[in-house]
Amino acid sequence: MITVAQALEHVFALVAPVDIEEIPLAQAAGRVLARPVSAKRSQPPFAASAMDGYALKAAEAEPDAMFKVIGEAAAGHAFEGSVGPGQAVRIFTGAPIPDGADRVIIQEDVGRTGDLISLNRDMDEGFHIRPAGGDFVEGATLDAPRRLSPANIALMASMNIAHVPVRRRPVVAIIATGDELVMPGETPGPDQIIASNSFGLKAMLEAEGAEVRLLPIAKDTVASLKAVFDLAKDADLILTIGGASVGDHDLVAQVAEDLGMDRSFYKVAMRPGKPLMAGRLGSAAMVGLPGNPVSAMVCGQIFVVPALRVMLGLEAAPAPRRRGVLAIDIDANGPREHYMRARQTDEGLAPFGRQDSSLLTILSDAQALVVRPPNDPARKAGDTVEYLPI
Amino acid sequence: MITVAQALEHVFALVAPVDIEEIPLAQAAGRVLARPVSAKRSQPPFAASAMDGYALKAAEAEPDAMFKVIGEAAAGHAFEGSVGPGQAVRIFTGAPIPDGADRVIIQEDVGRTGDLISLNRDMDEGFHIRPAGGDFVEGATLDAPRRLSPANIALMASMNIAHVPVRRRPVVAIIATGDELVMPGETPGPDQIIASNSFGLKAMLEAEGAEVRLLPIAKDTVASLKAVFDLAKDADLILTIGGASVGDHDLVAQVAEDLGMDRSFYKVAMRPGKPLMAGRLGSAAMVGLPGNPVSAMVCGQIFVVPALRVMLGLEAAPAPRRRGVLAIDIDANGPREHYMRARQTDEGLAPFGRQDSSLLTILSDAQALVVRPPNDPARKAGDTVEYLPI
Repeated sequence: MITVAQALEHVFALVAPVDIEEIPLAQAAGRVLARPVSAKRSQPPFAASAMDGYALKAAEAEPDAMFKVIGEAAAGHAFEGSVGPGQAVRIFTGAPIPDGADRVIIQEDVGRTGDLISLNRDMDEGFHIRPAGGDFVEGATLDAPRRLSPANIALMASMNIAHVPVRRRPVVAIIATGDELVMPGETPGPDQIIASNSFGLKAMLEAEGAEVRLLPIAKDTVASLKAVFDLAKDADLILTIGGASVGDHDLVAQVAEDLGMDRSFYKVAMRPGKPLMAGRLGSAAMVGLPGNPVSAMVCGQIFVVPALRVMLGLEAAPAPRRRGVLAIDIDANGPREHYMRARQTDEGLAPFGRQDSSLLTILSDAQALVVRPPNDPARKAGDTVEYLPI
Repeated sequence: MITVAQALEHVFALVAPVDIEEIPLAQAAGRVLARPVSAKRSQPPFAASAMDGYALKAAEAEPDAMFKVIGEAAAGHAFEGSVGPGQAVRIFTGAPIPDGADRVIIQEDVGRTGDLISLNRDMDEGFHIRPAGGDFVEGATLDAPRRLSPANIALMASMNIAHVPVRRRPVVAIIATGDELVMPGETPGPDQIIASNSFGLKAMLEAEGAEVRLLPIAKDTVASLKAVFDLAKDADLILTIGGASVGDHDLVAQVAEDLGMDRSFYKVAMRPGKPLMAGRLGSAAMVGLPGNPVSAMVCGQIFVVPALRVMLGLEAAPAPRRRGVLAIDIDANGPREHYMRARQTDEGLAPFGRQDSSLLTILSDAQALVVRPPNDPARKAGDTVEYLPI
């Protein structure tokens, strides 16, 4: 058996960033920017008023000074003339500062009668002018790679970037295997169960930016497995679920090898999720996930999500961990890295008592996976541990 | 001016949960479950083997004991007979436990010659049987409301729930207003800028589950505003951006009131984002956001996202805050609640020096909004503060 870190390195070696596509800005949120983009203009493009008030010459802005209002500047409507001595222009937030003016007196500090204004004795000291290019200048870049946040989208709009170069969505084909499986909505036989892992993994990977195809369930025969693998040929990543163990009925590895899979490894010292394999099959990467529901989902989180991030052009890195305190005592760990389902409580992380890898209810109720290194000693309530939020 | 908490209560009073729709399970991730759903079967539906090995009578499982292998049980293929004294059935993970057997000896603890097996002297003590209904029993519920996680989806699949009752996506119409605005990709005039808030807000609200419609930019005329409001009639929530201030050119409040808006409030003691209004306009809730880019985005986070969660049937609650330490000293706060854009560094939260509400670059680079209560005193590096991750 190899360690989780070693297995993850193997998985990273199997994948590479996918192609770049240009998409409209309005569809780019959550996608991964593939190349830096440059501002097509400065923002603001002109010195602009930060407040509603009167634009005039700063040198004349004395208490009680009077000015003649010679015009108006609003956002989108510049004042075309120039502000001379003793003159002011009524101005609104976002309007270009008129030539000759270099300060805005906020309207609360001004009294107005007809075309005349007088400044108050006590005035706000600010100049209330946003300099041209104060936010960014033409050519300023938004760096890549990065997953585009709502604020990134707003910034690119402001930069007048209408189309965005992003990594296309990696195509992930999911193959659930096993004669015991039927699809949700079907009527299972007395010795059958419902395929659940494929639906959970689809949700997990779509949230990361994949285009997921749920292929038909493969039966435990060479012919059925080959037929379903054939449907996955053009995927970037093929995930099989089940059949990666050593039982006589686990045909997936055998069929994949018949089809030319170059297998990278077989078993990983982790819990849940021991049986796992990975390799390349034609132009696709392939990861074989264990069939136990929780094992499949945890391996998805630990191996597949980081692999998908590499395919999206992001850094090859393990799933980010946080540090938290335990709410309860927990026993010593065995020789495998253990990802314990846990609740987040007011007192800290509370791993569930039942950790069997078949229990989806426990995974569904968990907010965290507490990570136990191999042979980690017993831990007390209040001890700090690492965990993955889920 | 009213406080942020008061304003949020007003906004909550304007919105209510939207209708429920039934959607296919494969599309339900991230949606909000509207009603509890019940398992249509127990899982496992039968006592099942947790390992590959041999099923036999526990009372006979003595070291060196020998058994005759009378058949095989695999996942999806039960052994139809019964296990008698001195008999064993070859069994694989997930297979039903045959009648008469009540323990599985893992294959590593067994030697086999033809049809005969003998148990090792040292055996794993586990019984390796998952009892019927050990994960959940028929009728067990997944509670609502909740946003559906990948694990929830896997669990519902396992419960054979093929269609899921969720809140439909609330329709949010976004109206950017102002003669100074053009759309990304257009060529702005010398006193114009690019509409950015609407794109950032669209990304923010779609991530929360809204169906967002970007309406045409409204010019600063009564006719243009009325025409665009008319396009928003069937929305659940109308957001206007800009024009909610007190300047002579801010027509939005006036036009909305002409159209029958019942206005809830006008100004909120927060920074950025002071001018803000909300009310009801026909069957829609309406929130008027300030026009400064960062103000609009922060108000979106503080008011609109929580309102959307109420529309999705979730709890009426402020945006969840976390606690973190400051990496640097910061000055005392003024009378308004201040949301300071900050980086997450190894040393803690580092608010940016420039906090002007026009600076999208700073928002784009920020990972957190540090929340300063009104009149919060100066804080030192190492002090604990509240923040919103963004």
